Amino acid sequence: MRMGIYGYGNLGRGVELAIRQNPDAELVGIFTRRDPSTIKTLTGAAVYSRDELESMKDAIDVLVICGGSATDLPEMTPALAKGFNVIDSFDTHANIPVHFEKVDAAAKAGGKLALISAGWDPGMFSLNRLYASSILPEGKDYTFWGKGVSQGHSDAVRRIPGVADARQYTCPCEAALDAVRAGENPELGTADKHERVCYVVAEEGADRARIENEIKTMPNYFADYRTTVHFISAEEMKKEHSELPHGGFVIRTGKTGMCGEHSHVIEYSLKLDSNPEFTASAIVAFARAINRMAKRGNTGCRTVFDIAPADLSPMSPEELRAHML
Amino acid sequence: MRMGIYGYGNLGRGVELAIRQNPDAELVGIFTRRDPSTIKTLTGAAVYSRDELESMKDAIDVLVICGGSATDLPEMTPALAKGFNVIDSFDTHANIPVHFEKVDAAAKAGGKLALISAGWDPGMFSLNRLYASSILPEGKDYTFWGKGVSQGHSDAVRRIPGVADARQYTCPCEAALDAVRAGENPELGTADKHERVCYVVAEEGADRARIENEIKTMPNYFADYRTTVHFISAEEMKKEHSELPHGGFVIRTGKTGMCGEHSHVIEYSLKLDSNPEFTASAIVAFARAINRMAKRGNTGCRTVFDIAPADLSPMSPEELRAHML
Repeated sequence: MRMGIYGYGNLGRGVELAIRQNPDAELVGIFTRRDPSTIKTLTGAAVYSRDELESMKDAIDVLVICGGSATDLPEMTPALAKGFNVIDSFDTHANIPVHFEKVDAAAKAGGKLALISAGWDPGMFSLNRLYASSILPEGKDYTFWGKGVSQGHSDAVRRIPGVADARQYTCPCEAALDAVRAGENPELGTADKHERVCYVVAEEGADRARIENEIKTMPNYFADYRTTVHFISAEEMKKEHSELPHGGFVIRTGKTGMCGEHSHVIEYSLKLDSNPEFTASAIVAFARAINRMAKRGNTGCRTVFDIAPADLSPMSPEELRAHML
Repeated sequence: MRMGIYGYGNLGRGVELAIRQNPDAELVGIFTRRDPSTIKTLTGAAVYSRDELESMKDAIDVLVICGGSATDLPEMTPALAKGFNVIDSFDTHANIPVHFEKVDAAAKAGGKLALISAGWDPGMFSLNRLYASSILPEGKDYTFWGKGVSQGHSDAVRRIPGVADARQYTCPCEAALDAVRAGENPELGTADKHERVCYVVAEEGADRARIENEIKTMPNYFADYRTTVHFISAEEMKKEHSELPHGGFVIRTGKTGMCGEHSHVIEYSLKLDSNPEFTASAIVAFARAINRMAKRGNTGCRTVFDIAPADLSPMSPEELRAHML
């Protein structure tokens, strides 16, 4: 499958690397809004201006759109789905239905196939919520995130006067995880399930007590959460906190039996050293499915819910049944 | 969806109970090789002789075949797939390809749709092996079983002279689990991953040391495993060991990055109070998919790998995108 990458940030670089791990995938090129000559790729992949994309339609089977969910993808994915089989990682959960409709109309108009919201949440976590709730209808599911870097929260801390640099980790509360696993079905809001840990490099002479107080009382971002603030040196920040780890848990507990006398716990968890590289790896697997489904004549928009798992694997149906079932 | 149950053992009873938890499912009846008048169902469901099945073809959308994998299902599923949309839990992994071919031919000949090997292993564990290996091609996966009752091993202990009753639990080795989760990629055989714990009621006057020795040295079943034997009273056996719990773990670790510098751990686990009831719950969700796919004109044999997850859920595609993605 011949793949293109549209946008070259953390996710685009992850897709570039993930393609190397899949012998049936080939990277045609990276397409950018910037001046291509200013971009040095990780693997030496070709870089083109996005204006050249149109002329390379026949060279690309699936185009991975690596843009932000706030402003990029709502425009880019519908526009590109008219001419290409596309896949994106749109992750603003509340706006997925609107995004789906726009991409579906565009892809159908162009006779192309699109997959939105691939990755791990939305993505693998969504699939696990669906499988678990379908199997255990009398139950409750919980999603916990972390331990992982939240870019938005890190940025919010960096905007506080006196902060030279900051990194914020979202961490699941162990006590909440334990209560869920024990089948206690607790009522938990996001702030009950997570705590926030900040690593801050203060400017010289800055008032650390004031910074810590401003973080802990920041509405929406921190005020509702148990928040811990650690002041560290710039060297320590660089050495210990320059990666983008993430992960989390999807847990469903449910009951079966004559009177609900049997409890069951289904748990799916991810521990990821690199959030963008894992997301990119999931995207490449789903791109394989989109390529196959497009060749079978499918058009319009899909989500991970619509993809038969066999289409994700490089193995044949016979191999899957013999070795994986 | 109107369902029939063929065979009324532990699994059949589980399906009977699971159907009650799914408002879109209705139990038409239980079909048995035994004299129907001798069977008392858990919920008061109707019981018919299997000879009456043929005449009720039009009343059943999906027939769940609840037989053993050793001798029942290899005959039953192909025979019944000619006249019914069927689903089974065939779990002899090595024989799945042959079973698939036979059921596929029968279902196609009858214009019906079949799903084989539904449940959790094969089933949900297989799906997790497939998803994880598709996302992390440079990695390794491990399946651990337990803590759970093994019927075969329990029977083997019961055959030892002087044993009045016995229950054997297969348990995953914590040290092996930890090594896998740490990404150490250990080479592990089944005996390295599991230990066996036996609870034995000895007959009065029986030589316990001999019984323990016979268990621990039994070839294939115990000799290669770390095995623990506990002698207990008949009362304790009844009180503590009359349920059929099971579960396990599917873990894949893999690397991404320029030189594999980032590690990732994907872990799926089940903790089940009742193995047959959970298997039955999975079967009913997959039966929903088979009913929908049959109505769309699909015929032949499928496995869990071929089922788009959306088809498992009672929710509409729009609801799934809005609430589950």
